[in-house]
Amino acid sequence: MNIKLLKDEVEQWISDYFGDKQEVNIRNFEAMSYSIKVGGKRIRPILMLLTYSLYKEDFESILPFASALEMIHTYSLIHDDLPSMDNDDLRRGKPTNHKIYGEAIAILAGDGLLNEAMIIMLNECLDGNLNKIKASALIAKASGAEGMIAGQICDILSEGKVISEEELLYMHRNKTGQLIIAAILSGATLGNASEEDLSALKMFGDKLGLAFQIKDDILDVVGDVAILGKNVKSDECNNKTTFITMYGLAKCKAKCNDLTQECFQILKGLKANTNYLEEITEFLLKREY
Amino acid sequence: MNIKLLKDEVEQWISDYFGDKQEVNIRNFEAMSYSIKVGGKRIRPILMLLTYSLYKEDFESILPFASALEMIHTYSLIHDDLPSMDNDDLRRGKPTNHKIYGEAIAILAGDGLLNEAMIIMLNECLDGNLNKIKASALIAKASGAEGMIAGQICDILSEGKVISEEELLYMHRNKTGQLIIAAILSGATLGNASEEDLSALKMFGDKLGLAFQIKDDILDVVGDVAILGKNVKSDECNNKTTFITMYGLAKCKAKCNDLTQECFQILKGLKANTNYLEEITEFLLKREY
Repeated sequence: MNIKLLKDEVEQWISDYFGDKQEVNIRNFEAMSYSIKVGGKRIRPILMLLTYSLYKEDFESILPFASALEMIHTYSLIHDDLPSMDNDDLRRGKPTNHKIYGEAIAILAGDGLLNEAMIIMLNECLDGNLNKIKASALIAKASGAEGMIAGQICDILSEGKVISEEELLYMHRNKTGQLIIAAILSGATLGNASEEDLSALKMFGDKLGLAFQIKDDILDVVGDVAILGKNVKSDECNNKTTFITMYGLAKCKAKCNDLTQECFQILKGLKANTNYLEEITEFLLKREY
Repeated sequence: MNIKLLKDEVEQWISDYFGDKQEVNIRNFEAMSYSIKVGGKRIRPILMLLTYSLYKEDFESILPFASALEMIHTYSLIHDDLPSMDNDDLRRGKPTNHKIYGEAIAILAGDGLLNEAMIIMLNECLDGNLNKIKASALIAKASGAEGMIAGQICDILSEGKVISEEELLYMHRNKTGQLIIAAILSGATLGNASEEDLSALKMFGDKLGLAFQIKDDILDVVGDVAILGKNVKSDECNNKTTFITMYGLAKCKAKCNDLTQECFQILKGLKANTNYLEEITEFLLKREY
């Protein structure tokens, strides 16, 4: 097993899924399929699969959940990019959904992806497996108004304002952190992890999510648009408070390093072999996109 | 039991639910709460509760599902009303969500309601009850890109075009019909109905949904804005093909009557006492809003 393989497996599952759907009715799935196939690091599904693999060997069995999580992430990007939200034209080096299909269809594509994720998870739950129901419930909760959406609302309402460090942390813990934690905890839940492991992994997810977001803000300042596939300095243009405006670049880099070290420490405390989770943690720190 | 009581029970459940949520964080739930509390006929949850009551006496036990369904319906209205969609300022006699909270928050309020519905249903499923999982799965499917969203996509893509009768029926069967059928079938599923009853009730839902939409189109032409709580002639202004432009007013009225009679026939074929379902079927035909 390696991380690239997991990424390919998720992308293949998603491609097969939408391929079958589009054969029946191409119109209903075209815009949804566009944004999910346009690429991405697939961090969330990979984290779910790697965490699951601490406990079980058959990661293929949870590909529907991993893919559903990526659909939820993608729906949030489509809606975030809309003119009334961040108004972004470029995502992953390609035109954003509404630039191709128009705003109305883009809104529906986002709605459709969120729905489809729930359909996929609920269909998996039809066998009555309680761990699957728990994993689905925690993913739904992390995506909702007390999770990712809370962060998005905070983001919208903070636009053009200077916000406090507490508010900035709240925003990112919800907007990015919750779905990353859910990726890890759902993988562990599906793998039947102990309560003790679940609480260690929750801390791991929290720190990883924060490091991830700080790194994103760093890349928004120092990143290369050709590698990133999206416009840089977008936060500055939108007058947003970011970790850079809050702490400065040097302190952000130090924080990112520290959080990564703390992640390693937590992983070392687990009984299972966490080599792959360490590898992706390091990748997330060093990435240039 | 009467229909008004069921409506009150659903509204109370929703009000309590958002009341508790808003105590913790008013900001995250304010816009969601606004649109769901602004009123409405609550047809879908009432249909679910009445169908469930053909089989079981404890309708209170499925209020979470009934309320979740109403949240899904409300999310679809918020998104439908957006400037890039139908661009409506008025809904149920009150300003639409985006007129009060702005487009970005309105999009998130819709997203939040869909998510919340899934959270509520999945939390109910944590007891492992297979009928609950089946009901949740069928509601999710009916809301998704092969259900309600398929109808919305069709609606968007048909704007300003003359469409065929087949296309018009496809649009409404999905946009309105699927969630009405899901209301009925999820109620029956939660009540542990037989396969035979499920297939009769599916036909009932299909005819009821179609009658409901034809009646909506009739009211858009002959309705009173003060009673309807939304602008009339909106379809005409949007150059939409409707049942009125397709069949004319007289034929629409006749069709609506015929479908209602067919609904009664199906209900009479069931063993249970269907008085209340007949009552709501008749109300939907005769309503002025």
